[in-house]
Amino acid sequence: MPKKGLVILGSTGSIGRQTLDTVRAFPDSFEVVGLGAGNNISLLKRQIDEFQPKLVWSSNNRLSLNSFGDSQITPMDEMVCDPATDTVMVGTTGRAGLIPTLKALDAGKSVCLANKEVIIMAGEIISQMPKKIRTNLLPVDSEPSAIWQCLQGEDQPIRRLIITASGGPFRNTSEAELKTVTPEQALKHPTWTMGRRITIDSSTLMNKGFEVIEAHWLFEVDWHKIEVVVHPQSLIHSMVEFADGSVKAQLGPPDMRLPIQYSLFYPDRHANKDIPKLNIDVATNMTFEPMDPKRYPCFSLALHAGHQGATFPTVLCAADEVAVDLFLNREIRFDDIPKVVGQTLEDHQPGNPNNLEEVLASDEWARIRAREVAQK
Amino acid sequence: MPKKGLVILGSTGSIGRQTLDTVRAFPDSFEVVGLGAGNNISLLKRQIDEFQPKLVWSSNNRLSLNSFGDSQITPMDEMVCDPATDTVMVGTTGRAGLIPTLKALDAGKSVCLANKEVIIMAGEIISQMPKKIRTNLLPVDSEPSAIWQCLQGEDQPIRRLIITASGGPFRNTSEAELKTVTPEQALKHPTWTMGRRITIDSSTLMNKGFEVIEAHWLFEVDWHKIEVVVHPQSLIHSMVEFADGSVKAQLGPPDMRLPIQYSLFYPDRHANKDIPKLNIDVATNMTFEPMDPKRYPCFSLALHAGHQGATFPTVLCAADEVAVDLFLNREIRFDDIPKVVGQTLEDHQPGNPNNLEEVLASDEWARIRAREVAQK
Repeated sequence: MPKKGLVILGSTGSIGRQTLDTVRAFPDSFEVVGLGAGNNISLLKRQIDEFQPKLVWSSNNRLSLNSFGDSQITPMDEMVCDPATDTVMVGTTGRAGLIPTLKALDAGKSVCLANKEVIIMAGEIISQMPKKIRTNLLPVDSEPSAIWQCLQGEDQPIRRLIITASGGPFRNTSEAELKTVTPEQALKHPTWTMGRRITIDSSTLMNKGFEVIEAHWLFEVDWHKIEVVVHPQSLIHSMVEFADGSVKAQLGPPDMRLPIQYSLFYPDRHANKDIPKLNIDVATNMTFEPMDPKRYPCFSLALHAGHQGATFPTVLCAADEVAVDLFLNREIRFDDIPKVVGQTLEDHQPGNPNNLEEVLASDEWARIRAREVAQK
Repeated sequence: MPKKGLVILGSTGSIGRQTLDTVRAFPDSFEVVGLGAGNNISLLKRQIDEFQPKLVWSSNNRLSLNSFGDSQITPMDEMVCDPATDTVMVGTTGRAGLIPTLKALDAGKSVCLANKEVIIMAGEIISQMPKKIRTNLLPVDSEPSAIWQCLQGEDQPIRRLIITASGGPFRNTSEAELKTVTPEQALKHPTWTMGRRITIDSSTLMNKGFEVIEAHWLFEVDWHKIEVVVHPQSLIHSMVEFADGSVKAQLGPPDMRLPIQYSLFYPDRHANKDIPKLNIDVATNMTFEPMDPKRYPCFSLALHAGHQGATFPTVLCAADEVAVDLFLNREIRFDDIPKVVGQTLEDHQPGNPNNLEEVLASDEWARIRAREVAQK
């Protein structure tokens, strides 16, 4: 087997680093063609030393042309289209992965998508692509990866997708206490170790709302067939109920390297001794309870924006990114996050979601508007 | 779609009646070609009136040639080979389904196998059949059906099969109390409603041992890769752990009509409003604990016989059938069941499991020997 040419966008982030772990575990399977990163130049340099990619990019403006030795500085949306590229891991956050994802798909590459905002912003655009291209978009997040795995070999009618939610760190926190939640408290996720933005989005369950929107587009399933159930132990990552009432679930240790590896090797599965195994045969308890949307206003906002369609999901994402930043900078309170996002959505004049310019304009508008709303 | 020609062996038993429920639910999908039953002549007659099968059989000796109207009396191993037969549901118990199953497979029919003793007795013989024929053998039991469903679309290396066990009604019964267990107590299964033999086998976990042997042959998985875990709620029917550590589980309501229907329609899934749905979104608790083989001597005997191979699994089945009968007739105690089976296995001189005559001879021998052992 020739090595797969791999481009990793967001290589210094949580998904990027774990993708490189996978490359380390399977050195004969991957050739790192390109690395794209943000501001963590020192880590990017170490990654370049180790993996010697042909192409490299950093969004850091202070970048000098000869900073990276032999690696060629190439914008992300170009490196993904390089002839040596077979697979792109989109591990960026926010809108950063949007254009590279669309370009990579257009160029016929496989795209492993961890940056779910991309599909929330471009769900309509991607759904218009030919099936041959659309099916090259592979989920990396544990929940859609679970659904995807459960759907293998099942070209059968779906009755429900059941997305599990840990419920976040504030599942049992009172409404009054939520007002005074600090960034430090919100950054402590009960089961997963992730980047900062997604950890906050998990604590508000905005992230779970994003996953519902993502599942709607990725698996072409009607909104009313997607349910969320709280499963605090995060052992079952999601389930699919088929027409006959049979339910398939995917379980795994809470380790992102597993879905990362599955997306990179799809459809093959390989043993990786670095990933811990699930010990279902020792005393194990799994509980499930209904989710109370009233506790999670961000979740309700996301579902509503998803139903509304148009450019509302884009505004949802952008406003949330701003609100989370403001919260992490202690400029707004935890319970201000849904207020900022909700007001921004209310103020939005929707555009055409099939028009990339209008999507990007809505994104820009929402970022500005969200800051204005927060300052009021 | 033309209707599938269906032969149901054991039509008056639990699996047979539920198979006919499925035919009633999908009248345009199946044509009942043949019904084979034991001694419940009155129910068989009602089934004949309703489904008008071309072929019919009863093992009752008092059968008169004109008892069944226009239906033609035909031995079970002939009706399965009839040109009108596409699919055979083997819902018999014990060795009754053995010859019809082998003949149906040889004739290229699909065989839905609920009578797991068949594969325990003939595992070696079936494993020698061409793959095209072997793969027409479809499991009906909920555990192997779960594994089979989890394996759909996964041509990937298996790390473990994890078979779930409710633990039976005596999971928390002391060893002393087990001595005085009555047939009435043992016939109360905590989660499933089944035939008498399998209910007792479930209470001793002999049935779980049978399932390990069945899984070994059906899925061609090494013994050391098959584990049993106690899951008292019986919601997850079994799991498969793949090479990468990802685990798939199949869940469903404890209703045999679901795996019956899956095997009949395979690979298609159809909604059936008669089958209750799993309510995973109301408060649900699933627990898992290691199985203590010391509590379940029948399970250990089964595993040992499986490992030994040869005609030991056949002797296991036959001796167990005798022992369960004796227990139900109050001729031996509940804790005598493993003693009778164990001693019979110890006394056995193994034969060639690829030779049907030797398998049948071992079966005969074991039935006689088990009665002798019980009388001591």
